Amino acid sequence: MSIYEIIDKKRHGGTLSREEICFFVDGYMKEHIADYQASALLMAICINSMNDDEIFYLTEAMMNSGEIIDLSAFGDLSVDKHSTGGVGDKTTLIVAPIVASLGCYVAKMSGRGLGFTGGTVDKLESIPGYKTSPSLRDFLTCVSKTGICVVGQSANLAPCDKKLYALRDVTATVESIPLIASSIMSKKLASGAKSIVLDVKVGSGAFMKNIDDATKLALTMKRLGERFGRNVKAIITNMDVPLGAYVGNSVEVFEAIWVLSGNTDSPLGKICIELASNMVSCALNLPLDEAYQRVNNAIFSGKALLKMKEWILAQGGDVSYISTPSKLLCAPFSCEYISKSEGYISGIDARSIGCASMMLGAGRTTKEDVIESSVGIRLNKSYGDYVRVGDSIATVYYSNKVRVKNASNMLDRAFSFSNEQPPELTLVYKII
Amino acid sequence: MSIYEIIDKKRHGGTLSREEICFFVDGYMKEHIADYQASALLMAICINSMNDDEIFYLTEAMMNSGEIIDLSAFGDLSVDKHSTGGVGDKTTLIVAPIVASLGCYVAKMSGRGLGFTGGTVDKLESIPGYKTSPSLRDFLTCVSKTGICVVGQSANLAPCDKKLYALRDVTATVESIPLIASSIMSKKLASGAKSIVLDVKVGSGAFMKNIDDATKLALTMKRLGERFGRNVKAIITNMDVPLGAYVGNSVEVFEAIWVLSGNTDSPLGKICIELASNMVSCALNLPLDEAYQRVNNAIFSGKALLKMKEWILAQGGDVSYISTPSKLLCAPFSCEYISKSEGYISGIDARSIGCASMMLGAGRTTKEDVIESSVGIRLNKSYGDYVRVGDSIATVYYSNKVRVKNASNMLDRAFSFSNEQPPELTLVYKII
Repeated sequence: MSIYEIIDKKRHGGTLSREEICFFVDGYMKEHIADYQASALLMAICINSMNDDEIFYLTEAMMNSGEIIDLSAFGDLSVDKHSTGGVGDKTTLIVAPIVASLGCYVAKMSGRGLGFTGGTVDKLESIPGYKTSPSLRDFLTCVSKTGICVVGQSANLAPCDKKLYALRDVTATVESIPLIASSIMSKKLASGAKSIVLDVKVGSGAFMKNIDDATKLALTMKRLGERFGRNVKAIITNMDVPLGAYVGNSVEVFEAIWVLSGNTDSPLGKICIELASNMVSCALNLPLDEAYQRVNNAIFSGKALLKMKEWILAQGGDVSYISTPSKLLCAPFSCEYISKSEGYISGIDARSIGCASMMLGAGRTTKEDVIESSVGIRLNKSYGDYVRVGDSIATVYYSNKVRVKNASNMLDRAFSFSNEQPPELTLVYKII
Repeated sequence: MSIYEIIDKKRHGGTLSREEICFFVDGYMKEHIADYQASALLMAICINSMNDDEIFYLTEAMMNSGEIIDLSAFGDLSVDKHSTGGVGDKTTLIVAPIVASLGCYVAKMSGRGLGFTGGTVDKLESIPGYKTSPSLRDFLTCVSKTGICVVGQSANLAPCDKKLYALRDVTATVESIPLIASSIMSKKLASGAKSIVLDVKVGSGAFMKNIDDATKLALTMKRLGERFGRNVKAIITNMDVPLGAYVGNSVEVFEAIWVLSGNTDSPLGKICIELASNMVSCALNLPLDEAYQRVNNAIFSGKALLKMKEWILAQGGDVSYISTPSKLLCAPFSCEYISKSEGYISGIDARSIGCASMMLGAGRTTKEDVIESSVGIRLNKSYGDYVRVGDSIATVYYSNKVRVKNASNMLDRAFSFSNEQPPELTLVYKII
């Protein structure tokens, strides 16, 4: 067996065997196989695709390339959630305390943000004291005591996926259903939860640009997870507009607390209830109807917000920020972004809003960048709202005036207007 | 413009512009673009192909990546020949003196052999004293005085092609008509000849496995060359069996002299006459019929062999090897390879014969290997001959007994037999 033959086989549309895929993953980790050979194979996979067996073998091999978290102590009650990345996506901060307050266990390893999408761990770090890298033992103890622990991803979780992802990122081989599915699932499977709920986003702010592709990805991941003995549900949601009114870090924690305080009548609130209900339904083996009821009850009784405090405290965070969330709106300066147009807002490009936030310092352009946790954007108008010239569409939280100019130019591209009221947005396209 | 966007475009089947292709070639030479990005792009090209414009731009950019030889001093009389590589292919040694004796100028830069195919320069170096790396000035003086100079390829001739070829060789991206065409033609164009005759080989010993692909490659290169203002002809020839009876280095020079001495009634002789006639027809602007006559006359009058002596002398070689060619059959030992079967020879696998010769030491497995110029193989039986058990099918010239065993095992795979006389072999499939 040689990597040359493996590349050549996939180049000509052949089906790779378990042995060939293991040979590749193993050789790449041991550096017998060079980056330039891996990228040639990845490109051949992008164009000629992989069947379910190949995706299974690749996922398995990547999962086995590092440590595997053992959550068997939590029986069937461990549940994880994954979102394919989005702008303003703070759903983990909201759903984790909801489902934990209902008896589920959330042992979550989250990524950091890169580019125009934010990372959950970056958002949590805006709470002073919050520790994102405890030992594995402390991580599991925290889960066991409070039902939640959300930490940064261990470097040793599916390390082959990390190495390959970095390569895909610079060789135009990111967009590929087999590669995305195996990348996400190798990490989720190694993280050990029995149930996994996937939030597959569609739209301008997401990897998947249309519902068909998103459905294909969701079905691929569902079949894959089930083959590994996990319960998997996938929810296909809209990412044409940012998720929620706030985009940034501390401002997103602020918004999460707002939703957990009972303000669920927004796209963000609705999607969180959908996700949490599916997680509860999977983990507790309940009909979805009953799960919805319990989730609503957890929010409106205050149990979920209480669980959030317990969790933040357990991870060393300053709970006064949860009790007094206005402390999270702490940027040195703010200004209004004023509309130059009149009409109904018919589009809010999530990607542009994400880029504007990144330009303010809330995100990273390279892995080494340090983020500013307090800066960000609040949308004062939503999709469908009527706006007049001079109205404030957004509030910009900033620390550096020069950056506001760039962010403001980016915001100019974000909003589209029309003379007629645009059709209502679908939030959740499908549950699979 | 970014390499990411360029890779992504080709990945999705897009057409690259001249600027994008120049950006790639330039960035790759300057090492702003990494090997892993180049290999991803190459794989996308292999699968999604390139149109004529893209091939033209790639060829142009690779040609311009190094020096370009100026042969304008020779007017329209400069002519070059290229073969897509084969086993036992010593046609350059034969056609160069023929066409030079008829007034053409052959300023040829030849490659070295790698793997199972031999290199013209390696063969010439088996003549003591022959210099393969004169200065550019001496090279041109030699062409001007004797009509021929055959040297090793300058490292600075289409260096981007060299760099890319080394990458293609380890990433399963060699087989691709756009990449093969641009690779060959960038070097031929940089070498400066006005007329170019291409010998595109088809069969087990060649890159192109069928006539359709070979025709496509030939037409692509012809259109390409003509767009650069050159006269191009392509001859599609059979490489199912080795070209000629001898495979090795000094033994191939021996066979070349044998053909130039008037022994043209063999597949090798016929193909050489075909190639030489097309070269003469292009360079002297003659009808092919008349070119055939002149070529035959050059051989049978002895003019061509005389020209070979003049050429070898001009490049410092010991001419006594040309006058007394038996000096070229100088391996320390020889033995017979005896048939274990009876029947008509219905196949001689060129690749296996090439590998056997390489195993004897006549070829290189890595670039650093030193070849032994005297070892090799003589086929004593040809395609279609009837053979009895115990007959000698081949003579093995060797220096190391251990290697004979391996070569002999390889020869076992080379010959196939049948009870009935096999159909006659077509030598030249097409002239384009």
